[in-house]
Amino acid sequence: MSRPTSFALSLPTLALLLAPLGASVPVDEGMWLFDDPPLGILSEKHRFQPTAEWLEHLQLASVRVNDGGSGSFISSEGLVLTNHHVGFEAISELSTAERNLVRDGFYAGTRAEELACPDLELNVLQSIEDVTARVLAAVEEGATEADARTQREAEIAKIEQAESEATGLRCDVIELYRGGRYSLYRFKKYTEVRLVFAPEEQAAFFGGDPDNFTFPRFCLDMCIFRAYEDGAPAKTPNFLRWNAEGPKKDELVFVSGNPGSTGRLNTLAQLEYMRDEAYPLYLRSMKLRRAALLEYAALGEEQARRARGDLLSIENGIKALTGYHESLATGRSIELKRTAEQEMRSSIQKNAQLAAEAGDAWEAIERAQGEKRKLSKREYCSRIRGSRLFSIARHIVRMVEEKQKPNEERLPEYRESALASLELSLFSDAPIYVDLEEVAIATGLELMRTELGAADPLVRAAFGNVATAEASAKRIAGSRLVDPAFRRQLVEGGSDAVAASTDPVIQLVRAIDPESRSLRREMEDKVKSIEARCGERIARMRFALHGSTVYPDATFTPRLSFGTVQGFETGGYNMPWKTTFHGLYERASAFDGEMPYELSPAFARAAQKIRRDVPYNFVCTADIIGGNSGSPVVNARGELVGLVFDGNIQMLGNRFVYDDSVSRTVAVHAGGMLEAMHAAYGADALAKEILSGR
Amino acid sequence: MSRPTSFALSLPTLALLLAPLGASVPVDEGMWLFDDPPLGILSEKHRFQPTAEWLEHLQLASVRVNDGGSGSFISSEGLVLTNHHVGFEAISELSTAERNLVRDGFYAGTRAEELACPDLELNVLQSIEDVTARVLAAVEEGATEADARTQREAEIAKIEQAESEATGLRCDVIELYRGGRYSLYRFKKYTEVRLVFAPEEQAAFFGGDPDNFTFPRFCLDMCIFRAYEDGAPAKTPNFLRWNAEGPKKDELVFVSGNPGSTGRLNTLAQLEYMRDEAYPLYLRSMKLRRAALLEYAALGEEQARRARGDLLSIENGIKALTGYHESLATGRSIELKRTAEQEMRSSIQKNAQLAAEAGDAWEAIERAQGEKRKLSKREYCSRIRGSRLFSIARHIVRMVEEKQKPNEERLPEYRESALASLELSLFSDAPIYVDLEEVAIATGLELMRTELGAADPLVRAAFGNVATAEASAKRIAGSRLVDPAFRRQLVEGGSDAVAASTDPVIQLVRAIDPESRSLRREMEDKVKSIEARCGERIARMRFALHGSTVYPDATFTPRLSFGTVQGFETGGYNMPWKTTFHGLYERASAFDGEMPYELSPAFARAAQKIRRDVPYNFVCTADIIGGNSGSPVVNARGELVGLVFDGNIQMLGNRFVYDDSVSRTVAVHAGGMLEAMHAAYGADALAKEILSGR
Repeated sequence: MSRPTSFALSLPTLALLLAPLGASVPVDEGMWLFDDPPLGILSEKHRFQPTAEWLEHLQLASVRVNDGGSGSFISSEGLVLTNHHVGFEAISELSTAERNLVRDGFYAGTRAEELACPDLELNVLQSIEDVTARVLAAVEEGATEADARTQREAEIAKIEQAESEATGLRCDVIELYRGGRYSLYRFKKYTEVRLVFAPEEQAAFFGGDPDNFTFPRFCLDMCIFRAYEDGAPAKTPNFLRWNAEGPKKDELVFVSGNPGSTGRLNTLAQLEYMRDEAYPLYLRSMKLRRAALLEYAALGEEQARRARGDLLSIENGIKALTGYHESLATGRSIELKRTAEQEMRSSIQKNAQLAAEAGDAWEAIERAQGEKRKLSKREYCSRIRGSRLFSIARHIVRMVEEKQKPNEERLPEYRESALASLELSLFSDAPIYVDLEEVAIATGLELMRTELGAADPLVRAAFGNVATAEASAKRIAGSRLVDPAFRRQLVEGGSDAVAASTDPVIQLVRAIDPESRSLRREMEDKVKSIEARCGERIARMRFALHGSTVYPDATFTPRLSFGTVQGFETGGYNMPWKTTFHGLYERASAFDGEMPYELSPAFARAAQKIRRDVPYNFVCTADIIGGNSGSPVVNARGELVGLVFDGNIQMLGNRFVYDDSVSRTVAVHAGGMLEAMHAAYGADALAKEILSGR
Repeated sequence: MSRPTSFALSLPTLALLLAPLGASVPVDEGMWLFDDPPLGILSEKHRFQPTAEWLEHLQLASVRVNDGGSGSFISSEGLVLTNHHVGFEAISELSTAERNLVRDGFYAGTRAEELACPDLELNVLQSIEDVTARVLAAVEEGATEADARTQREAEIAKIEQAESEATGLRCDVIELYRGGRYSLYRFKKYTEVRLVFAPEEQAAFFGGDPDNFTFPRFCLDMCIFRAYEDGAPAKTPNFLRWNAEGPKKDELVFVSGNPGSTGRLNTLAQLEYMRDEAYPLYLRSMKLRRAALLEYAALGEEQARRARGDLLSIENGIKALTGYHESLATGRSIELKRTAEQEMRSSIQKNAQLAAEAGDAWEAIERAQGEKRKLSKREYCSRIRGSRLFSIARHIVRMVEEKQKPNEERLPEYRESALASLELSLFSDAPIYVDLEEVAIATGLELMRTELGAADPLVRAAFGNVATAEASAKRIAGSRLVDPAFRRQLVEGGSDAVAASTDPVIQLVRAIDPESRSLRREMEDKVKSIEARCGERIARMRFALHGSTVYPDATFTPRLSFGTVQGFETGGYNMPWKTTFHGLYERASAFDGEMPYELSPAFARAAQKIRRDVPYNFVCTADIIGGNSGSPVVNARGELVGLVFDGNIQMLGNRFVYDDSVSRTVAVHAGGMLEAMHAAYGADALAKEILSGR
């Protein structure tokens, strides 16, 4: 691990030119890079100086769950703690109509009982190397924006492939600061993962959608897997010791995880686009999907079970996106951004050299938003969401085509370094429910026609010679793609086999893929590359003005956040920093046990046994966003004191502008997890392993 | 009781002129007159038709606590239920440094142990008579506004005195609809009142100021008195039967109480005045008082005890006034009022006769606000708040002077009908703490000088020949007014004795009273009489436009509200309709028992015994405001199901515009009170009397 890599290396002239102009007030803001931790703020505000060993230990104990979450090692023998909602898909895939692990929970009292997950992949970041100079050197002088992008991507592909071969690790070059820095991340991969413990969903997600993104909370949103290597529990000497005392009020804590995506470096024009176009479209799409899934789930208990995962994720998405949208539409984010942007631009104008460097970055991004308004709806609708068959078919159609190109010319997701992970998911034998697929495909086609109109070429290609979305969806019942062997056979058959395939889903994808790829290319050329290049320039300006007190936008890669454990006030109500088990029973009683406030069977049985005063959930100011789910909360001694599973509703506005006055990260308390494992689930052997570390 | 008295009687022409123009959507709004209940809305929206007997029973079981609250009879032998914070002053007056009933609570297991309160007065409304015609007939044709007011007041005084003499009851003529109606209210008075039960203040006011005006709540804000007549428990056949089951979710409930003051008929100009001048001034004054009291309370435990009542009431006031002010300054009230006023005025303009009748009512009120801006600060500052000695001295100085006038020319508070209640309070032997009085007087003088400047005649008169507020306040240490006998002697000595008195507080009042009275007169003539007359005209317009779907602004007289039991959503959080005892222990645990979240000793002891699932507090949509504290919540069968003690923060905006989407009345649950009496306080005999009704 090469730490600390200075951001200044890639910006020598600017960094030397100017001392930071604006002294920023230190707040508990930031999703910091492990190779560029916020040592100054930590030392100044919190009187804490992490050592290189401390940071390295935390990094190596932190896990990225490739489904889109985070986790951590909690024993030397591969135990991984994450959220129930992060492990949900894996738990769901292990369930059947007869053995509903989502509803009933699961506990493997012995290693022999642990259940192998079909396609769960865990990544652990081993080292980081700054490759900015190499990537930028690949761009020829005078290259157009589009050429420059292609040249950079080719170089990135080259680096990734060479590094993967040399190390046997998963190697990704991560673009940070919108191209201000390129870092090579080397991940150790675990693909043999087994389920050890999951509470009932009703315990994990007590309060359901109404309580999602709120606090006070009473959720045991945890599950525990074990990483294996060659059939034996993985040796994981870097694990987090469990501190059942948990944190104290006002204590400094850290969150290590993989925040997915933030828009803090977005310009005002980009936020306005999100407010006016993107979020309203996404919300329309999600609400259509929710309605269709609810209709399907109402058909019976088994249908409800099959739809559960998608429904949870859509409801979560609707609530999150509504929060993001409202922070832009009615909240303070736009105003704060406008002020910050004006201040920044006027600072830049005071310095001729900076002004020349900035050029028309903001104006160009604003113009690109115009292009985006033209293209993005069609691009968005060209992908059918929520259908595994569609996703598989599209990967197959594209993969066989991309594989014929040199590695560096391929779309990033089909480069050699990414193929292994993709294939794990592509050839997984996790169950696919054709009736649920039909619902997803009908809904996607319906959205396409509603948003684009029947005359749109994409719509005409997708519908072919059938008149209704339902009719088109019905055809997929005959698809053999439900069989992993058939998928493998198609991929191995290459482009000829795919071109000749009469599989209805492959046919659907083939019909729309030319238009879909062309839209993606146009979006890259006319919008994304401009946003990236100008965003990079703006990021450089920001660095020139504010020095190293900045961190890059989230990229679903390992980051370190910090904050303190503290309550907040909302709507005049004094929210404590924690809840206890008393509160779980209070909320169930207050709603007369009506769903989503029914006690799970284990908590109902444990009512007399459980120690009610034990803390259950708590909040802190650490800066997180989706992707951080399952992140460990650790104290200054590097011990695990909690498990991030959510933020309060105010946190959603942090997507664009961080505000620590009321926004809070919500976590399960280490002591509460242990108490529940003992008193409600009898998971004593597991608790013992956690407390002893082996 | 003369019911129903039609508002139309006083407005014959207008009522006949127009059918209601605007069909109002029925919401759970309104503080309705017992002689004009909202039968239409109840029947239409809630399918409930109260009978005359139902209404009369509830009216006769409802109690006005003259300290400024409400209550109800809960047994046939005089038991009265009200809030701890309504009974606070009485409980406090029964406390000493050695026997702190506020802190420790009180329970009289037998009648012999019940403690007589020195000056608590309870009123029960016996009957209502419309005297509008008589009052209006007293005004001579062509009288000026000021003369008209004097003539009306003289007639009111005559009616009150004659009725008091004839019935032996307390008889007050109440101005409703800003003079649109005058009603004679005949109250039975109880002045022998004894304390039966009070929990510890920490149980009654759990969560303290931070939780005040919020929900979820966990407060046993109750106390129980017994009314006596001639040394024996009063016979009170009209009492509310206790329903320990309490209400169900969505159940229709009623609140019978004495809302103090609302501003729903205020014009936009009046609201703007409140926003810009009145509330900011009141808040400055209260914050000055709070600071002084906190400083005093910090001197020791006994000082803290002495200051407690004033501090609670000021903190409550600051929170309430901040809420009112914010609903005007940043909330929707001003906008809603502007829209409603514009609509109303434009409806009026469409009808020539109405337009002529309305005349310049809004403009005149707007002009009066200009006068108010000039006068009101001086008038406000001319009274020293929080000092009992100042209040007593001013009553004595004014009473001896007013008594020399014919009854109908006196200031209303010195008319014969009011004197008995005034004297009960004036000659009470409740303790007065001179050191606390010094703090109040110094603070009042300081406010006067800060707000008005040292050169103001009022300030010069008040300070006399001393330089500092403290020095002036110090002088009162020698006042003999702490002795009730001395007060009686002064009153009996009449104006000569008062004029000759060298008592320092009498001297202070004498020095400022001429200016103070003249300011009051100017405010009456230039502002209040105009607001009253034009307000009446506007009220008549409103009646013409909306028919009998209107109710008058609150006047601290008995009113009936209704609503349903339902939770609400705030800041994205799903608030249940009730809390249970689980939640009390949760909130104490969540804050680690730190004040104001410490369990009271009784609840700490009862932790194992109390049935946690029993409902504790709950919310409903009934329309209330300060003064409703202690009101019974009754179900459609007229049984007591709860005890109003607060509203949530959103309810404060209802002062000006009612909004039932999130504003809620907060009550203690009948079952929760009973459970606490049994399990925490061992008040079994009392509980038995309540359940059996005797």
